[in-house]
Amino acid sequence: MLMDFISVFLYNNFVMKNIYLDWAATSIPDHKILQNIYETSIETFANASSLHSLGIKAKKLLEKSREQCANALKVDKKNIFFTSGGTESNNLSIYSIIRKKIKGTIISTNIEHPSVLSPIGQLEDLGFNVIRIDSEKSGIIDPDKIEKSLTENTALVAIIHVNNETGAIQPINKLAEIIYKYSNKIGKNILFHCDGVQAAGKIPINLTRSNIDFYTISSHKISGPKGVGLLYCRKKIEPLYKGGGQESGIRPGTENVANIFGFSLALQQAVDNINQNIESAKKKCSLLISNLKKIKECRIIPEQRIDATFFPQQYDRADGSDMQDLFSPYILNFYIKNIPAEVLVRAMSEKGFFISAGAACSSNKKNESQTLKSMKVEKAGMLSSVRVSIGPQTKEEELIDFCNVLEEESKKLLNVI
Amino acid sequence: MLMDFISVFLYNNFVMKNIYLDWAATSIPDHKILQNIYETSIETFANASSLHSLGIKAKKLLEKSREQCANALKVDKKNIFFTSGGTESNNLSIYSIIRKKIKGTIISTNIEHPSVLSPIGQLEDLGFNVIRIDSEKSGIIDPDKIEKSLTENTALVAIIHVNNETGAIQPINKLAEIIYKYSNKIGKNILFHCDGVQAAGKIPINLTRSNIDFYTISSHKISGPKGVGLLYCRKKIEPLYKGGGQESGIRPGTENVANIFGFSLALQQAVDNINQNIESAKKKCSLLISNLKKIKECRIIPEQRIDATFFPQQYDRADGSDMQDLFSPYILNFYIKNIPAEVLVRAMSEKGFFISAGAACSSNKKNESQTLKSMKVEKAGMLSSVRVSIGPQTKEEELIDFCNVLEEESKKLLNVI
Repeated sequence: MLMDFISVFLYNNFVMKNIYLDWAATSIPDHKILQNIYETSIETFANASSLHSLGIKAKKLLEKSREQCANALKVDKKNIFFTSGGTESNNLSIYSIIRKKIKGTIISTNIEHPSVLSPIGQLEDLGFNVIRIDSEKSGIIDPDKIEKSLTENTALVAIIHVNNETGAIQPINKLAEIIYKYSNKIGKNILFHCDGVQAAGKIPINLTRSNIDFYTISSHKISGPKGVGLLYCRKKIEPLYKGGGQESGIRPGTENVANIFGFSLALQQAVDNINQNIESAKKKCSLLISNLKKIKECRIIPEQRIDATFFPQQYDRADGSDMQDLFSPYILNFYIKNIPAEVLVRAMSEKGFFISAGAACSSNKKNESQTLKSMKVEKAGMLSSVRVSIGPQTKEEELIDFCNVLEEESKKLLNVI
Repeated sequence: MLMDFISVFLYNNFVMKNIYLDWAATSIPDHKILQNIYETSIETFANASSLHSLGIKAKKLLEKSREQCANALKVDKKNIFFTSGGTESNNLSIYSIIRKKIKGTIISTNIEHPSVLSPIGQLEDLGFNVIRIDSEKSGIIDPDKIEKSLTENTALVAIIHVNNETGAIQPINKLAEIIYKYSNKIGKNILFHCDGVQAAGKIPINLTRSNIDFYTISSHKISGPKGVGLLYCRKKIEPLYKGGGQESGIRPGTENVANIFGFSLALQQAVDNINQNIESAKKKCSLLISNLKKIKECRIIPEQRIDATFFPQQYDRADGSDMQDLFSPYILNFYIKNIPAEVLVRAMSEKGFFISAGAACSSNKKNESQTLKSMKVEKAGMLSSVRVSIGPQTKEEELIDFCNVLEEESKKLLNVI
């Protein structure tokens, strides 16, 4: 009893904590997979394009990895193209419409990741017409608004699957069906791109049943190595850049076979454990929300997540056949009124808790979050919003600990500010 | 004595050999560097854009790596941009001229890597005028031909440093000076891009003294990890694709810090040992040439390399101040008359010797080598040309062994064909 007290006292006061709650920026890598990559880098080091037996060995492992990713996603391996990551995958598919003779309309949203927002902005500069739909206050895009925007001139619809800042799950099955039906009606194929970086391996996806043309996955968000990702591509597209013809010419450059193999292991593992992990994440996220609610100055973004059921569902399929969660349990956005996000992130970091001020990839920018702006979050929230994102290894006690320290630190900071 | 005889007999007849002579396709990775990458992937796993202390740690290592690369190249670190490899670096700089208001002329050669040839072809489709200079029979570009092609309309000159198929070293210092002087004369900056993938860390380069605007380096050609490279860039350019603003916006996407760090170690190591390695490589290459000369049906490409001095030199600087080797000792091209390259590569592979049929990245294509065509190599040579490429770990006895087995196999194959 005394020992327990002493150890808790020591832990809370002297031992540097190391509680990682920034899984959406990058996940804690799987050490076994890293070990496997190390060994593969030695054993299967040859260039996969070489004709000798070492090259053939590398090529076989590359194709085995492609097959593993395809199996995990239940798609054909000919539709899987490896890239350097999510950003490149998003750019690759979006820029692929650049060669269209008629510069049509692109429909997207104001809650996309910069690697979707920016190339679309570029296409706009090149003469494409762009319609950007705002999300509802919930952070979710209303499918009716997309449907009403479709015209015979629409070339591409690009919508994020799980928003990286709020965890809002977009009704992509419903959207895919709407686009598919409209395409059939006008007798012209409208492409549907979906950024699945925060969704793949975390929430269920069904690419074959959905009418999705492009789907982006990043390895390092699911405990795989960095610098690898894939683009699921229903039809062959033009490459973003050219070279030696690797990846069927869509993505040239010597393949990092060891990392690609590691990625395929990570994806398979994530998909194998998806239901178990999501149930566990829901419990953790509910616990987090209920503890945050106790902090007076804390506000959850969006408010919908404070409800008694933390994962309210809505019908996703256009025919109403599928129920889906509205929010990913892996991401939670909130703010402490009057504490700037960066100040809170640094203060919590000093206490050994690692969270994010908005999305990591744009955390160095002074710009306001496009996503929160689109959701019409009040100004105070925009300046103070932080993100907690969890993974399979996150422990419930870590989240309780986090909320306790957050409350203490907030009080201190509010006294100073 | 008897034991020696027995072990040689056993080695030659029963032990599977594993002699890697395809270093230009990819090098044997440095195991210590791989181990370091493994450890770094665990210890410094955070997203380098995250604001918390783990993110700052990753960012520091990223910047330390950039500094290490800059020091190795004796340039400013602000000019170093990390990419996914040589192909992306080449495309990044070449496509950067796409936004020029006046679509000028691009001068390049017919001995470039596909990752230079192809984007230039694309720019041609988009309205740029392209002049492609043939090499001399030696595989070397005559600087006078480049000089004569320069006009006020020239926007970019793109020339490979060391050709990946023949090892021919291009007089890039001289070319850089010619371009610089002409730019001054016309009062307009003509950009000079140089693909240094087979040169960096292998033969001396001086980027600051040369007037080179872009220089491409790949990590996996110098025993670093795959999937990483850099572009040295004298001036800020437009990105190839867009996203979260990493690498000063030139190359977005979460950085693979561990691999970038590994690359910086590999580059530093290669540069530290450059003179020692090149002297050793010259000896090995001379030995290889003298042994190949003994094989009746063997022809070296280009013939110039059979001369008594295997590394004839020429003045490189436009002012005649620098002597430079004409050929990299790391790459040797030759053919056995009447044996198709692929047949020879596979036969040698079965015996445990790993060589290449032309460049690995295009070895699956039925196309003729653009480089050899440009050199006006006879048809028989084009079909049969193979490449041996060595590294610091290649042993002289391995090359002697290779030549012996090559002679035997050639005889067998010529009897069959």
